[in-house]
Amino acid sequence: MKTSAQAGVAPRPEAKVVAGNLVNLAADRPMRLDCGLEIGPFNLAYQTYGSLNRERTNAVLICHALTGDQHVANAHPVTAKEGWWQNLVGPGRILDTDRFFVICANVLGGCMGTAGPMEINPATGEPWGLDFPMVTVGDMVRAQILLLDRLGIESVFLTLGGSMGGMQVLELGAKYPDRVFAAAPIATAAYHTSQNIAFHEAGRQAIMADANWRGGDYWKYNTEPHAGLAVARMIAHITYLSEAALHDKFGRRLQNRDVLSFGFGADFQVESYLRYQGSTFVERFDANSYLYITRAMDYFDLAADFGGHLADAFQNSPTRWCSFSFTSDWLFPTAENRAIVKALAAAGADVSFVEINSDKGHDSFLLEVPEFHDTLRGFIEGSAAKRGLAR
Amino acid sequence: MKTSAQAGVAPRPEAKVVAGNLVNLAADRPMRLDCGLEIGPFNLAYQTYGSLNRERTNAVLICHALTGDQHVANAHPVTAKEGWWQNLVGPGRILDTDRFFVICANVLGGCMGTAGPMEINPATGEPWGLDFPMVTVGDMVRAQILLLDRLGIESVFLTLGGSMGGMQVLELGAKYPDRVFAAAPIATAAYHTSQNIAFHEAGRQAIMADANWRGGDYWKYNTEPHAGLAVARMIAHITYLSEAALHDKFGRRLQNRDVLSFGFGADFQVESYLRYQGSTFVERFDANSYLYITRAMDYFDLAADFGGHLADAFQNSPTRWCSFSFTSDWLFPTAENRAIVKALAAAGADVSFVEINSDKGHDSFLLEVPEFHDTLRGFIEGSAAKRGLAR
Repeated sequence: MKTSAQAGVAPRPEAKVVAGNLVNLAADRPMRLDCGLEIGPFNLAYQTYGSLNRERTNAVLICHALTGDQHVANAHPVTAKEGWWQNLVGPGRILDTDRFFVICANVLGGCMGTAGPMEINPATGEPWGLDFPMVTVGDMVRAQILLLDRLGIESVFLTLGGSMGGMQVLELGAKYPDRVFAAAPIATAAYHTSQNIAFHEAGRQAIMADANWRGGDYWKYNTEPHAGLAVARMIAHITYLSEAALHDKFGRRLQNRDVLSFGFGADFQVESYLRYQGSTFVERFDANSYLYITRAMDYFDLAADFGGHLADAFQNSPTRWCSFSFTSDWLFPTAENRAIVKALAAAGADVSFVEINSDKGHDSFLLEVPEFHDTLRGFIEGSAAKRGLAR
Repeated sequence: MKTSAQAGVAPRPEAKVVAGNLVNLAADRPMRLDCGLEIGPFNLAYQTYGSLNRERTNAVLICHALTGDQHVANAHPVTAKEGWWQNLVGPGRILDTDRFFVICANVLGGCMGTAGPMEINPATGEPWGLDFPMVTVGDMVRAQILLLDRLGIESVFLTLGGSMGGMQVLELGAKYPDRVFAAAPIATAAYHTSQNIAFHEAGRQAIMADANWRGGDYWKYNTEPHAGLAVARMIAHITYLSEAALHDKFGRRLQNRDVLSFGFGADFQVESYLRYQGSTFVERFDANSYLYITRAMDYFDLAADFGGHLADAFQNSPTRWCSFSFTSDWLFPTAENRAIVKALAAAGADVSFVEINSDKGHDSFLLEVPEFHDTLRGFIEGSAAKRGLAR
């Protein structure tokens, strides 16, 4: 994820944050997972920004994407980089932390403090590794509902997220309609396509092909499958950008040289960039977690839980919906978003739909795309007025 | 590459073939490569189908793609599968071996008999490995010109090829205009794009990340980086298909099961298919060769050899050109082909351009796409009439 800090812009001030929240959930009763197993008690790591109002009506639940985490609007504890949505979240920003109580939890199966393959299995005192149960987007949302219960939040004002975050938003709105006042799924889909499963599978195979992966037990040997994970990241990163963005950003320009090297070094800027993306990613992400979370996305198929009819997922939805797509996003193209909106409309839901012009590809939801920000602001302000949260 | 044999169709009869041709070239004088080094003498492996006529005017030079080889229209010696263009080449077919003398040579840097990293370096008596000089599309074409000289063919009636084969066709027509009567570049581009370099780089990194690659010296250790090469193939294979083709072919259908396994096996048909593509590819292809040939494609930029002006590559071209693209090819999209045609037209060349409707993606040029075959047939028959080769 590119931030304005990387782009050479002065860093934004951080939102006031109660850092390092960790909550132990499902202690009284284990949580049943889609795979049929149970988990609990387990930890969920989350960040909050701003304060919950007395009426408990101003909570905003942000759902993060595959390689995101809970550090939405504060410096990342590993990379020290600006939060991944710090351009949206903070005092006076579109998600104004002076008005809203913003929450983001690391997903189940993640690697930033929430229970996942690199965390300790209480039954053994060792990391779970591949003994961690397979989790789904539905399970991630179940855990977030437990968190909302713990925080005493009956209904969030807004939930939003891009990519896998958008899948969680759809799941939340469909399965827990009374707990969501407004919802913004962004650059997402109601099911993972064949092509997207294929890209994920290539990435998983790259990890598993790394001799240091050791059948998922690398933590026992004090090694990590960094080379394979870096390749997985490189594959995925290409899909997050558009051909036009790559052309504009790099074209065929050479990296620190005037002529071709006639070798296998990073002659081209785009190669150097990809290698950098791979090498920095492995410092902050766990390889097994990458396997689990990509699998959760592959498994996502919201209609399948409703007899194959997506509209049935949203019957009598009381939620205000606004769905966003980006013209150059070929990973979650507008057609996928349109299918969501069609289902919402067929279910009689209050839905609007915006296709944003952007040549920045899937990553547009993370970047400075004024039309996206303006439209999101409009949706939030309109919803806030309806919720009695007008400025 | 899928063949009709795989699709369950009865195999076509093979063209009459003088199999296993191997010619030793550049024995009198080494061939200078674009990297500045010289190579020679070196072997070139090729297949021919049909007979050269007395006037030596009926030769057709087919140029193969990245993972193709010279076995265009006969059973492959390793896989026993039908030739990769057997649907086009044979008696009575569009490239009628009763009328034309069809030639296809394994490219320089390849791994099917032509000099490349897995062949013996005469200076050491051991495989070249990464000591093999870096080769370019220009070098591949230089070697083919030496072959034509050896065969006594002043001018080929037609040269054609898809993808990297199309790059060679463009190079041939631009650098050796008097030796090409007609030329059909198919699903190709005059330079490799940033996105395509990126996909290649991810594949190369997958190979190099395999512990069995051993810095390219795997042949010394009797190992092969099969896992990494399979991942490279999987990545590339996704780009050869279209999202629509994957959706139609596999969708989210499960492989040999009714329910999700909640594991990392090949639950989905598309995963099983990709794994199969990876595992069969490594049986017939050399990992170092994959590095060299992808690099040659990355380096291809025809305009760069002509002061950055593509039209200058084709000034006074005497060749009849017909350029083909496919609507769903996102690896070499129509826009790239259009740039070629624009340059040819600007240079005053005789050029036609056809965008074929197909949802089969980049691989369309290998598949049964009737509109493509019909148009190609028309171009060939029109050119044959001009060359005095009418039926």
